[in-house]
Amino acid sequence: MNRQIILKSRPTGMPAVTNFELAETHMPSPEEGELLVKSLYISVDPYMRSRMSDAKSYVPSFEVGKPMDGGVVAEVIESNHPDFVVGDAVLGHLQWKVIQTINAQHVTKLDKAVQLSYYLGILGMPGLTAYFGMNEIGKPVAGETVVVSGAAGAVGMVVCQIAKLKGCRVVGIAGSDDKTAYLKDVLKVDEVINYRTEKDMKAAIERTCPDGVDVYYDNVGGAISDAVFSNINKFARIILCGQISLYNSTEVPVGPRPQPLMVKKSALMQGFIVSNYSARFGEGIHQLAQWLGDGKLAYQETIVDGFEKLPETFIGLFHGKNTGKFLVKM
Amino acid sequence: MNRQIILKSRPTGMPAVTNFELAETHMPSPEEGELLVKSLYISVDPYMRSRMSDAKSYVPSFEVGKPMDGGVVAEVIESNHPDFVVGDAVLGHLQWKVIQTINAQHVTKLDKAVQLSYYLGILGMPGLTAYFGMNEIGKPVAGETVVVSGAAGAVGMVVCQIAKLKGCRVVGIAGSDDKTAYLKDVLKVDEVINYRTEKDMKAAIERTCPDGVDVYYDNVGGAISDAVFSNINKFARIILCGQISLYNSTEVPVGPRPQPLMVKKSALMQGFIVSNYSARFGEGIHQLAQWLGDGKLAYQETIVDGFEKLPETFIGLFHGKNTGKFLVKM
Repeated sequence: MNRQIILKSRPTGMPAVTNFELAETHMPSPEEGELLVKSLYISVDPYMRSRMSDAKSYVPSFEVGKPMDGGVVAEVIESNHPDFVVGDAVLGHLQWKVIQTINAQHVTKLDKAVQLSYYLGILGMPGLTAYFGMNEIGKPVAGETVVVSGAAGAVGMVVCQIAKLKGCRVVGIAGSDDKTAYLKDVLKVDEVINYRTEKDMKAAIERTCPDGVDVYYDNVGGAISDAVFSNINKFARIILCGQISLYNSTEVPVGPRPQPLMVKKSALMQGFIVSNYSARFGEGIHQLAQWLGDGKLAYQETIVDGFEKLPETFIGLFHGKNTGKFLVKM
Repeated sequence: MNRQIILKSRPTGMPAVTNFELAETHMPSPEEGELLVKSLYISVDPYMRSRMSDAKSYVPSFEVGKPMDGGVVAEVIESNHPDFVVGDAVLGHLQWKVIQTINAQHVTKLDKAVQLSYYLGILGMPGLTAYFGMNEIGKPVAGETVVVSGAAGAVGMVVCQIAKLKGCRVVGIAGSDDKTAYLKDVLKVDEVINYRTEKDMKAAIERTCPDGVDVYYDNVGGAISDAVFSNINKFARIILCGQISLYNSTEVPVGPRPQPLMVKKSALMQGFIVSNYSARFGEGIHQLAQWLGDGKLAYQETIVDGFEKLPETFIGLFHGKNTGKFLVKM
């Protein structure tokens, strides 16, 4: 028998494990041009929260009663396509199933010399999100101060390191002393702020950014961003990558309006999703792989064992349970 | 005797005429390299409100007890500089005085074949603000929908017409039926909204922008912007030129956070001031003058007669008393 995880009901506010259901399903068999694949690593990502509601977004909503889906690294266990053989590793946008069929044209064959889980992280969507957000919107210049929220997350930790490679002064914001220690000791960021223990975030930003903030890579939004915002420099660039602190809001989040300060500071704020740059993914993966191979990028994952742990792992994202990329391994 | 208008006290909230004082002052005499000039047209502009407070901004604060200053077109009545003769018209950043001296290097000689007041409007700071904001941030493409708030103001009316020249569908928001009639009948914008009589601004934006909003040129901020914002398209560009609705706020203005929607829509929001583009003013004035000469740009001014009317004219900006550029004539 095969297993899947379906969306049982749409959450209101913070998702609960009861919004998901682990269910048995049939064992499929691949048609012509299809592969039968077995999941190896399944990605959980903050953006999936918006897909759990039925509001219009940049990605289609999950359907109630249907399996969840997302980035998955899988192994080919049966091939009906000449380009793939049993044992190949593939990356695809797949369902949360132990075993499934997929059109071979919808997956990418992976280099097994690389740690396969990296294709869901530093060499995948989060790494590319860091790369293109920084290069295309942030445009950091050596000597500038770059602040990163969610700095110990899958995207944030790559952002911090790209900023250091560019010669910037980097201030990382994260939610535990373990994470800030990792940022400081391993990623070599210049200053860290633990937003959970810091009493006055605005003062903390002023203290750690004495020359103001030139680039703010924002993964979290909300009050943390308000504090960073209050200290931006003229021509500041604010990269809106995610707003994880607001994803579970049940009302429209309200806060200080950023516009008057943006006029005063000639500041830029830009939202994006990584697929805007899909035509250039090859360039991004090549650069990230090169930095990784040269030992210029450190990388960390938090890997949870067991397919059935997917719902609680996903929910853990919103409680900061991960350092680096959060994954479930089969 | 000479006359000047000084800042008597800093306003809290909406400025009052009692924040200003009309005072006599001595008649100066020009030194070597200086001109003695008599004001002809004095500009009142929304940005001056922020200069009345002592908060740090992109332009220095006015000093209490000192004369106000800003854009002035003046006539040379005595010259101690070889490049200027009596009767020349000049543009400069001058004090609110009837007569004053100025270093000749700090003014620009004007072509008297052009209506001189235009150098404070369509061929001056407001025209350039419209031109560079649209071209450098808005980047409108033919067929796109452009929404303009403060559309009947000095900047807005030029923005509307540039957007029409680019082949866009233009929706103008203004605060009276006279202004919306002007926008529709003279500037030929496609749709208008009177925000003072419109009961549901969000519905009005949806009605007038059935294909969504691609470019929003924002002169006002606040609730009007919230309504426009709710209907932005993917890759929307929001040009933050002014936030006149918030300039007299006594507390930090609060509103719905724009960031989550900006992520969903890959939207860009950018503040600016026209001096960011000062190296290219020549290009902008040349283009605007050409359009004006070719009859492609209509232009309107609201001119108040009398130096002593400067304070009430300035305050009138915040009550929408002007259509087009608001000026005081001597």
